[in-house]
Amino acid sequence: MAKKITSRQADYSQWYIDVVLRAQLADYSPVKGCMVIRPRGYALWEKIRDVLDVKFKETGHANAYFPLLIPSSFMQKEAEHVEGFSPECAVVTMGGNEELEEPLVIRPTSETIIWSMYQKWIQSYRDLPLLINQWANVVRWEKRTRLFLRTTEFLWQEGHTAHETMEEAQEETLKMLFVYKSFVEEYMAIPVIAGVKTESEKFAGAVRTYAIEAMMQDGKALQAGTSHDLGQNFAKAFDVTYQTRTGGLEHVWATSWGVSTRLIGALIMAHSDDKGLVLPPKLAPTHLRVVPIYKNENKVQVLAYAAEVLAKVQALPGVTADIDDDDQNSPGFKFAQSELLGIPLRVEIGQKELEERQVMIARRDTGEKQALKADECASVVPVLLEEIQNNLFHRALTFRKERTFTVESYGEFVDLMNTKPGFIDAGWCGDTVCEEKLKQDTKATIRVIPLGRENGSHQVCLCCGKPSRQDVIVAKAY
Amino acid sequence: MAKKITSRQADYSQWYIDVVLRAQLADYSPVKGCMVIRPRGYALWEKIRDVLDVKFKETGHANAYFPLLIPSSFMQKEAEHVEGFSPECAVVTMGGNEELEEPLVIRPTSETIIWSMYQKWIQSYRDLPLLINQWANVVRWEKRTRLFLRTTEFLWQEGHTAHETMEEAQEETLKMLFVYKSFVEEYMAIPVIAGVKTESEKFAGAVRTYAIEAMMQDGKALQAGTSHDLGQNFAKAFDVTYQTRTGGLEHVWATSWGVSTRLIGALIMAHSDDKGLVLPPKLAPTHLRVVPIYKNENKVQVLAYAAEVLAKVQALPGVTADIDDDDQNSPGFKFAQSELLGIPLRVEIGQKELEERQVMIARRDTGEKQALKADECASVVPVLLEEIQNNLFHRALTFRKERTFTVESYGEFVDLMNTKPGFIDAGWCGDTVCEEKLKQDTKATIRVIPLGRENGSHQVCLCCGKPSRQDVIVAKAY
Repeated sequence: MAKKITSRQADYSQWYIDVVLRAQLADYSPVKGCMVIRPRGYALWEKIRDVLDVKFKETGHANAYFPLLIPSSFMQKEAEHVEGFSPECAVVTMGGNEELEEPLVIRPTSETIIWSMYQKWIQSYRDLPLLINQWANVVRWEKRTRLFLRTTEFLWQEGHTAHETMEEAQEETLKMLFVYKSFVEEYMAIPVIAGVKTESEKFAGAVRTYAIEAMMQDGKALQAGTSHDLGQNFAKAFDVTYQTRTGGLEHVWATSWGVSTRLIGALIMAHSDDKGLVLPPKLAPTHLRVVPIYKNENKVQVLAYAAEVLAKVQALPGVTADIDDDDQNSPGFKFAQSELLGIPLRVEIGQKELEERQVMIARRDTGEKQALKADECASVVPVLLEEIQNNLFHRALTFRKERTFTVESYGEFVDLMNTKPGFIDAGWCGDTVCEEKLKQDTKATIRVIPLGRENGSHQVCLCCGKPSRQDVIVAKAY
Repeated sequence: MAKKITSRQADYSQWYIDVVLRAQLADYSPVKGCMVIRPRGYALWEKIRDVLDVKFKETGHANAYFPLLIPSSFMQKEAEHVEGFSPECAVVTMGGNEELEEPLVIRPTSETIIWSMYQKWIQSYRDLPLLINQWANVVRWEKRTRLFLRTTEFLWQEGHTAHETMEEAQEETLKMLFVYKSFVEEYMAIPVIAGVKTESEKFAGAVRTYAIEAMMQDGKALQAGTSHDLGQNFAKAFDVTYQTRTGGLEHVWATSWGVSTRLIGALIMAHSDDKGLVLPPKLAPTHLRVVPIYKNENKVQVLAYAAEVLAKVQALPGVTADIDDDDQNSPGFKFAQSELLGIPLRVEIGQKELEERQVMIARRDTGEKQALKADECASVVPVLLEEIQNNLFHRALTFRKERTFTVESYGEFVDLMNTKPGFIDAGWCGDTVCEEKLKQDTKATIRVIPLGRENGSHQVCLCCGKPSRQDVIVAKAY
């Protein structure tokens, strides 16, 4: 606890790393680019996984597990896929002390191995739709890594579905995009913009990639989830056909979609502050911590009263609470620790509270404190947790609005990206030359073509000034 | 559905494979030795994981995640460990299109990578005990593989704990062994024998390995879980010391323990029959299936009544039920399908049942059928499920008793292993020469030295006839 957290103002990147390490969410490992997810970080992943898993099952998907290792020849079968992923592959060349005849790639994503199985499993329209999800680890050889946000190995889920028609696959792609959007907004309390990726930013092997983009506190974008309409690309690469209802033979239509442990990075960067983590109650492993404040002479009484209050809170459905009664640390240390860990509510109980049968309750998000009668805790705690959840979302939404700009000129855009990065809401002519130019000039990219704005609200292209063909959100990104 | 399941009598190995493939629990993959766990198989793993995960958390453990890839030099640090695992390693030599300076091993087990982190995390007795579990995939290069039972990649959990004292580590080792034992007996309905492995069968790097051994229907043993007392071996290899309560510096004491997807193989081989899977209700993803039997003229009425019965059953807490109302299949086909999948209860509803407001309910384990009033379902179904759970356990226990032998001579033992393999409950002199001889002669091994029989009930060694030093269970094993 010796070292202070760097402030966001001073160095946002260092602040992020300080929070992750100090809150013991993750640690660097001896393997370059790979992190260790410590229990406090893994508890967040478990929460995320459990909520999403229910949503996947409610939408008809079943979990399965496919091999980690993929024959390298499989990666070659879809032309764009191999081009996109080959440079990122970790390759197993030895097994059981012998050189392998064919090298095996550690999955960077599982389309190829899964579609090789779908070829066996799908014969008829009666086998469709096939709706499978996998929770797994994947490896992508990254040059520059950052805890949670970009690591050589990460945990994720990948949905892989097969359908009779193009329309059904398109519907699935959007359905899962909106499952992600509602999860990130309702549970993670982070507003996101749903849209389509440009051709140059789409998934290697997809016809169309959809994504949700979130804004971090430094104004940069973070892609929080993607959903791909794969068309018939993988079905053709792996020759997956089905007998249609009318007796014909057709290639099936596919989607894939995923979110990863990167979401934990988003969670931290969207809400946390210079004291440490700020967690939305719906994902916080612990909702409330009781900190008793006592001396030798009133220790027994204060602890007894604190235990009574704790029991009341623990009896509330869905509320997890604990007590920090370690004699070796001061109350001030405990307050700081509770803040570092992002526990949404802290309850202070000392002599005054004991005498008046009340408690002092402090919100992590605003720092506000209020005195409550002990008997009020059961009714007020759930209300406060809901308020915190809503406040975090609205705070993030307000921030995003403040940092979303329209610009009058390309020069203004370049200036903004250098001085106050945010989301630029602008028009685009659709030409990759413009897309490439703005990237070269500012390192910002077209994040998405937002959904629901097909008519466009901008007249001209941000870059070249020619007529705009579609609205885009441009930003620097993680 | 065309091919019949081979009978256990005709070919037990083929029967097992037929059941796994026909019930769609798993499939062969294009990667040698790696399997695909299909949704029906994965649903069993999810059930197993969810129950065990609660038990691990109740006993104070937290989940975390450590890297898949381990620097090959780490494997060298513990002498026995490297000797045991090196021949089984898959090795990554290329990453991002470049040859790696140091090859990386895909974890065959995670002691080395985890203890390299514990070295950073543990300083003082205040950091102990450290109780961490990981759910992960591991890879061991196997020459001969079999679906679920022995695959190159498998899913498992591995607990890794660090303690102040030898006694505490020993206590933890046994505590987790008994967590496994009670899980396998109470949920999987398989009786197991808990014991200590001999020196030659212990985990590479352990001081002492405990295991639980189950008997399959062919009389062979299956090791269902292991718990290792690692002493200070890994603490010394990775120099993990802690400041003691009295200010000294000591190496910490360690344990590790794990169960894997192999448990699904045990589940199948312990209970299933020539019609397919038989699942204990506590792990069955579906408890009851309604099969309506109708013709065109009474279809609407039968289906309406079936839906009413289904709703009654679905309203029972903890009971999952579905209906097979596919018009394209006959009732006979549906009965067979329900049996193949191991659904514990089948409810048949036809014209007669409709008229009399009753149902015909069939048990998967015994095949017994009984007529029930519709109103009785809610009270009888839970009772039947409990009876099936108990029956499976007692059936397996009875079978194990019948196939557990004491022998008068070494010749009798060899004969039995050739004609009717089972568990041999015998004495052993403690000499590895005898252990090796009986293995050479019969392919059977000492499975465990059973716990709680320290005084021994046998006078002489099964093999050499000299005085016995400990009781052992000898069997052929998977």
